[in-house]
Amino acid sequence: MDIEVIQGGHVTSPQGFSAGAVAASIKKREGALDLGLLVSDRPAAASGVFTQNLVRSAPVQVSEKRAQTGKLQGVVVNSGNANAPFDQKGIDDAEVMAALAAKHAGFDAQLMAVASTGVTGVYLPLDKVEAGIPRITLSPDGGPDFAVSIMTTDTKPKSYAVALKNDGETVFTVGGCAKGSGMIHPNMATMLSYITTDANVEPGFLKDLTKQVADATYNMMTVDGDTSCSDTLLVFANGAAGGPLITSGSPLGYKLREALMAVGTELSRMLARDGEGATHLITVDVVNGPTLADTRNVARTVALSSLVKTAVTGNDPNWGRILVAAGRSGSPVEVAKTSVRLQDVLIFDHGKVIEFDDAGVSKLMEADEVRIQIDLGIGTHNATAWGCDLTTDYVHINADYRT
Amino acid sequence: MDIEVIQGGHVTSPQGFSAGAVAASIKKREGALDLGLLVSDRPAAASGVFTQNLVRSAPVQVSEKRAQTGKLQGVVVNSGNANAPFDQKGIDDAEVMAALAAKHAGFDAQLMAVASTGVTGVYLPLDKVEAGIPRITLSPDGGPDFAVSIMTTDTKPKSYAVALKNDGETVFTVGGCAKGSGMIHPNMATMLSYITTDANVEPGFLKDLTKQVADATYNMMTVDGDTSCSDTLLVFANGAAGGPLITSGSPLGYKLREALMAVGTELSRMLARDGEGATHLITVDVVNGPTLADTRNVARTVALSSLVKTAVTGNDPNWGRILVAAGRSGSPVEVAKTSVRLQDVLIFDHGKVIEFDDAGVSKLMEADEVRIQIDLGIGTHNATAWGCDLTTDYVHINADYRT
Repeated sequence: MDIEVIQGGHVTSPQGFSAGAVAASIKKREGALDLGLLVSDRPAAASGVFTQNLVRSAPVQVSEKRAQTGKLQGVVVNSGNANAPFDQKGIDDAEVMAALAAKHAGFDAQLMAVASTGVTGVYLPLDKVEAGIPRITLSPDGGPDFAVSIMTTDTKPKSYAVALKNDGETVFTVGGCAKGSGMIHPNMATMLSYITTDANVEPGFLKDLTKQVADATYNMMTVDGDTSCSDTLLVFANGAAGGPLITSGSPLGYKLREALMAVGTELSRMLARDGEGATHLITVDVVNGPTLADTRNVARTVALSSLVKTAVTGNDPNWGRILVAAGRSGSPVEVAKTSVRLQDVLIFDHGKVIEFDDAGVSKLMEADEVRIQIDLGIGTHNATAWGCDLTTDYVHINADYRT
Repeated sequence: MDIEVIQGGHVTSPQGFSAGAVAASIKKREGALDLGLLVSDRPAAASGVFTQNLVRSAPVQVSEKRAQTGKLQGVVVNSGNANAPFDQKGIDDAEVMAALAAKHAGFDAQLMAVASTGVTGVYLPLDKVEAGIPRITLSPDGGPDFAVSIMTTDTKPKSYAVALKNDGETVFTVGGCAKGSGMIHPNMATMLSYITTDANVEPGFLKDLTKQVADATYNMMTVDGDTSCSDTLLVFANGAAGGPLITSGSPLGYKLREALMAVGTELSRMLARDGEGATHLITVDVVNGPTLADTRNVARTVALSSLVKTAVTGNDPNWGRILVAAGRSGSPVEVAKTSVRLQDVLIFDHGKVIEFDDAGVSKLMEADEVRIQIDLGIGTHNATAWGCDLTTDYVHINADYRT
């Protein structure tokens, strides 16, 4: 049994899921899709991971409570406004939005999650939501439109899907979509991602898998160090593919984990690559670290360093900045045991300055993806973090966001 | 007895200190001062605070050991090269540099601290240091030149001095200088600062004061979240003003603390204001926090937030970003008890969205200094952090640093 990428796959690729979106004028840009709905044709096992920020948007508070039941049937999302005035009216508005969407989809309001992304501190224009929802047409081909409708400063929609195949027959499918692209940082950011599968999954196992996937993928991606009040990952498993219930002991459990990791990894890479103003995807592989937590921490710290990011912007093979960023991570680093590679070229060897082809490595860094590999030499754990370079466009995007 | 600012004061304003600098061609720019020497006319009580980064430059390793004796007589500094190849040769070079400077100044090499700042990963051009040191002319008026010689990407030198006056008579003087301006972050950054005083101070008390000053000033300043391998604060007290030994119980102890805090605060503000590419100094006052550590942590987190920084760049009174940054600090924040002021205007009131003059506050934010005040409403502790906005020039400076 192999996991295969579905060309052009998206969040409604698994059976029993449909989606749709409309332009509801919540975003300033006329005609932009900004209100989307994703539903399953039956209640699904569901699990969520939400922002760690103590300041939480209204939809996060509503959706977290509903996801804790382990059962959801859909999610309604708007972009252009984060519904984050941080008071009771925000929560009331989120509940009304979910109820309207559930009524339109034809199921119980408690099974509808809700999300909003965009500017904070402004009340949701509920009249626009109310006018928009009935116009949404749900379809199994609606995944791409849904992925567009959740975008804010993203330059492109992010969708991905894989299928587990057995002798050419599909066992189950996993699809997903996500939006970034600033305020992205470990412990979730203004990041929304929805993963769907038609696999038949035991809710407790789905919850464990969701946490594992978030820790290894979404929480290893950083754009600017800011985490938002709105971050949400929801995973829906509706069982439409049939088959026996997959639990932690099932033979298919490993395959399901692998498929979810593949979708989470690729969506995370897409998010980092589309970081605000980014011109390079930065992949930081840290190997031979002392613990998994420390190894991940070093990877994330290097991926987040403004000085490493701007070195990548400038195609500068500056191992000093990489080493110094690792050194301030708070995790053990022994210079004499540390080696650094850039685009697979050794540029710092076990604590020693070495001769390398500076101009040649700089040339290699012109690639779309820049790989930094750090061998800590003090353990057996490996981790990967994804980030992006820091360009003048990041500043333009965020200095002029409201104007 | 009052503390008065000395107009045009600098690191050699206190009695018994002299300094000088030369252009030694360590920096690329021809004729730039890049090798400086600061000495006392007698051994001084001395104390240091050094980078918390586990990756430490050679001069930091040498100077920290010497400062631990509580006695130093001078420091030699070069800019343009950080002497950070992270191997034994780096340490040997730092010791040679200190020995050459001590010989030139006429005292024991063990009393000479050493610092280097600039590009990492390249061996120190020791021949240039050796040729330069004998050309340094030491003078009580050498403070300004010394302050220039330690600069890297700083746009201006940073010097400040105050005197404690009693009926018009000077009791003691405290002077200082510093350089930034990227890689600046709590726990010190590519930050070098030297504070001198002619007060007669007991070494143990000086050590306590140095830590207190660093915690309240240098460690509350952030430019880009990166800490360097080279950060150093050294405080010298040579007793040239005479008077009885100042200890923790002395009446003058409080005045000395106040004077050191004044110099540390003003130098920190100058460093933040001159952050790479900065157009605004950002001052974050957090009041009524639950503990001093938490209050400081919230202030620093907000000052470091890329989204807050870019909001300031764009003169955008975006309280949402301020609140969300506070919320991810890891310290307690209760939205319903939190208020936010920008340039003294209330823009978020105890968890409630309020009407305010958005355009008017935006206009006020055009000032050189933007003050963010956050009332946490859950305690009695106050703290201030200093940062700067994030502009496209930061990116240019750091993407093109080596080229």
